[in-house]
Amino acid sequence: MNLQDIAKIREVNPVVVNYANFVTPFLVANGLNAVGASPIMSDEVSEAEELVQLASAVVINAGASRKESWPLMNKLCEAANQYQKPLVLDPVAVGATQYRKALNLMLLEKYHFDVIRGNIGEIAVLAGIDWQTRGIDAGNGTGDMSAVVQACAQKFKNVVIASGEVDYISDGQQVITVHNNTKLLPAIVGSGDLLSSIVGAFSAVAENTLDAAVTASLVLSCAGERAAAQLDQQNRPGSFLSYLLDELANITPEQVQDLMKIGEA
Amino acid sequence: MNLQDIAKIREVNPVVVNYANFVTPFLVANGLNAVGASPIMSDEVSEAEELVQLASAVVINAGASRKESWPLMNKLCEAANQYQKPLVLDPVAVGATQYRKALNLMLLEKYHFDVIRGNIGEIAVLAGIDWQTRGIDAGNGTGDMSAVVQACAQKFKNVVIASGEVDYISDGQQVITVHNNTKLLPAIVGSGDLLSSIVGAFSAVAENTLDAAVTASLVLSCAGERAAAQLDQQNRPGSFLSYLLDELANITPEQVQDLMKIGEA
Amino acid sequence: MNLQDIAKIREVNPVVVNYANFVTPFLVANGLNAVGASPIMSDEVSEAEELVQLASAVVINAGASRKESWPLMNKLCEAANQYQKPLVLDPVAVGATQYRKALNLMLLEKYHFDVIRGNIGEIAVLAGIDWQTRGIDAGNGTGDMSAVVQACAQKFKNVVIASGEVDYISDGQQVITVHNNTKLLPAIVGSGDLLSSIVGAFSAVAENTLDAAVTASLVLSCAGERAAAQLDQQNRPGSFLSYLLDELANITPEQVQDLMKIGEA
Repeated sequence: MNLQDIAKIREVNPVVVNYANFVTPFLVANGLNAVGASPIMSDEVSEAEELVQLASAVVINAGASRKESWPLMNKLCEAANQYQKPLVLDPVAVGATQYRKALNLMLLEKYHFDVIRGNIGEIAVLAGIDWQTRGIDAGNGTGDMSAVVQACAQKFKNVVIASGEVDYISDGQQVITVHNNTKLLPAIVGSGDLLSSIVGAFSAVAENTLDAAVTASLVLSCAGERAAAQLDQQNRPGSFLSYLLDELANITPEQVQDLMKIGEA
Repeated sequence: MNLQDIAKIREVNPVVVNYANFVTPFLVANGLNAVGASPIMSDEVSEAEELVQLASAVVINAGASRKESWPLMNKLCEAANQYQKPLVLDPVAVGATQYRKALNLMLLEKYHFDVIRGNIGEIAVLAGIDWQTRGIDAGNGTGDMSAVVQACAQKFKNVVIASGEVDYISDGQQVITVHNNTKLLPAIVGSGDLLSSIVGAFSAVAENTLDAAVTASLVLSCAGERAAAQLDQQNRPGSFLSYLLDELANITPEQVQDLMKIGEA
Repeated sequence: MNLQDIAKIREVNPVVVNYANFVTPFLVANGLNAVGASPIMSDEVSEAEELVQLASAVVINAGASRKESWPLMNKLCEAANQYQKPLVLDPVAVGATQYRKALNLMLLEKYHFDVIRGNIGEIAVLAGIDWQTRGIDAGNGTGDMSAVVQACAQKFKNVVIASGEVDYISDGQQVITVHNNTKLLPAIVGSGDLLSSIVGAFSAVAENTLDAAVTASLVLSCAGERAAAQLDQQNRPGSFLSYLLDELANITPEQVQDLMKIGEA
C-alpha cells in the first residue's frame, strides 16, 4: 500500500456518499471528517444519482434498513457502477435474518462492489461457508479465516476485509493480514461501520482497491492503538471514542509506518 | 436484587433487540455494549420475529416514532410475548401528544410489558393520574410518587420504574426506592432511553423482573455517581457522557454494593 | 443583542421542536439541553401541530430528508406560522441536488422563516447568487459575503446567518459580523445543525430575531473558543466535542462579554 494516501485524502477531501443505518451515522460522519474526507448521507432516492456524481466513493451500510429504502440503495449502487465510483458494502449482521441475507445477496447479484467489509461471521455467510455465529457477532468459528476471506473475494471478484483481532484482507489471490489492534475498537458499536466508510474514502485516492483496503485498515487500527495508549490500555470505551476521533484527525504516514504489523497469510 | 447479575451479563452477553428512536440509538447501543449486552436495532418488520427469537430481551422506545413503524413495533411485541422474552416499554413524552398517547395505550392493551420505564410525568399519564407536566419533562407534580408508580404497576400487572432524582420501582405491591443519582444523568438527552435498555439487558439474566429493574437502576445511577465523582461534580455533560460509558464498562457488584442507597416507600 | 438571554434560557427552558436529520440529532439534542432549552424531535405528521403548540420555537433541518417527510415538515412550518412561533431553516447542502433545492425553495415559498442559517455556499444558492461550491461545503467563492447575506435576508424578509470563519448576520439592512471562532467547530459534523437549533432556542427568549441570531452565534463560537483553549488549540475533534458540550452548559453572559469580537460589515 501507499501510506502517502493518508496525506492525499487531506488534500483532496473526497466526498463519500453513505447509505447509513440510523444507529451510527454520527460516528461515521465525524470519523470520515477526521481522516479528511467529506461525508454526505441521504435518505431520498431522487437525489441519489446526483450525489454519486459529485462523490468519489459510495458506501452501503446494510444494517437496520427497511424495505422502503431498497430503491435508494439500488440507485446509489447503480449510479456508482455507472459512473465508476468505488462501491463498498458493509453486510451488518447479514447472518441474523432472512431479510438481511436477501438484501445483501440482491445487492451483490445486481452490482459490483469493489470492497466488502464485515466481521468473519458476516463474510462467511456471503461466501456460503458454515461458521458458528448468532448472526450479529463474529462468532466462534474455528475454520481458516484466510480461506474464507479469499473464497469470498473470488466469489464476488473484489476485495474482502474480515476485520477483527487480526484483519484479513484479500483480493482473491493474496491474503494480507493486519495485526494492529486494541480491544477497545470492538468495544465501540459502529467501529466496523466506520472502517467500511474509511475504506470508501481511501478507495477514492488509492491506486488500487487492495491498497485502499489495507491502508484503511491500518489507519483505523493504528489510530485505535494510539488512542488506547493514551488510556494505558484501560477499558474505557467512552474516553476511547473521543481519543479515537482525535487520533484519526492527526494520524500521519510516519506514525502508521512505525506501528504497522502486516503479514501475508 | 442479585448484584452478581452485573457479572453474569458480561458472561452471557444477552442480545437485546431495540426498537429505537433516531435521536439516541448510538448512546443506547454503546451503553448496552458497555454493560456486556449485545444490542441490535431494526427498522424492518419482516425481520422482527427472527430478531426476537435470537434475542434475550426486547425494548420498545416509543419516542419520535412514525405510524409507518407501528407494524414493526407490533410484531416485535407480539413475538416477545409469544416467545416469552422480557419486554420493556419506554413511553417517551407520552403526555405530549395524542399520537404518542394512542401508540402507548395501543401497545399496552395488546401486549404484556414486563417493565415500563419512564419519568414520573410519563408514568402518571399511563396510570391515568393527573400530574403537572408539559408532556416532555417529569413535571412539577407534588403527589405521592410512590402511589403513582404502584398504581401503574397494578394497572398493567408488571414492574414500573419512575426514574428521577429518586427512582421509584414497584411490582404493584412493594415500592423500592433507589436514591443514588447525580444531576448529570438528567443533563444527558438519552440517559432515560439507556436505562430502559439496560433494564432489558438485566431482565435477560435476573431471576425476576423486579430484581432486574432494581439492579439496572443501581447500575446506571452508581456508574453515574462514579462518573460525576471523576468530574468533582462539575456540570460538564460532554465529559460526563464519556466517563459514564467508561464506568458502565467497568462497574462491579462490589462497587454497587458500596455505593447503593435503597429503601422502601 | 442582550447577553442576559443566555441566563434567561436557563430559567425558561423553552421547548424547541426540531425536524432533524438522522445524522446529528444526538448532538443537537444534547447541545440544546446544555444551553438550557428542552429539545423534542418528531417523525410523525399527526403530532406536529400539538408539538408546535407546546413549543417556543421550531427548527427545520433540511439535510438527509426523504419525500415521505414533506407532510411533516409542511405541518410543522404551517403550525409555526399559525401560532406565531419563531421558525428557523437550515438548508443543509441545498446546492448539492435538485431535490434539496426544490425542498428548500418550496418551504421558503409557502412559509415565513424568521431565520435561515447556513454556510455561505448554501446562503448564496437561496439568494440566487453564483458561488463556487461542490454543494456540500461552503465553497471557495470570493464574492462579497456581506452582500450575499444581505440579499438573502431581503429576498426572504428575515434574518440570515452565513456561519463560517466569520459569521455574517443580516436582517436585510444591517450586517453584523461575529469574529469569534475556532478551527475545531467546522471539524465537527453537526456543529452547523447545532447552531441552527441554538438560534431557535434564543428566538424563543430574545426581544427580536436579529438579537437572537447574534447571541446564538456568539454563544456557540465563544463556547467553541473556550473548549479549544482547554485543548491548547490542538486539532482533537473528539475531545473538543466533549468540551464543547461542557462549555455550552456553563457559558455565562460575562464570559461572552469578555470574549466577543463583533463588527458591522
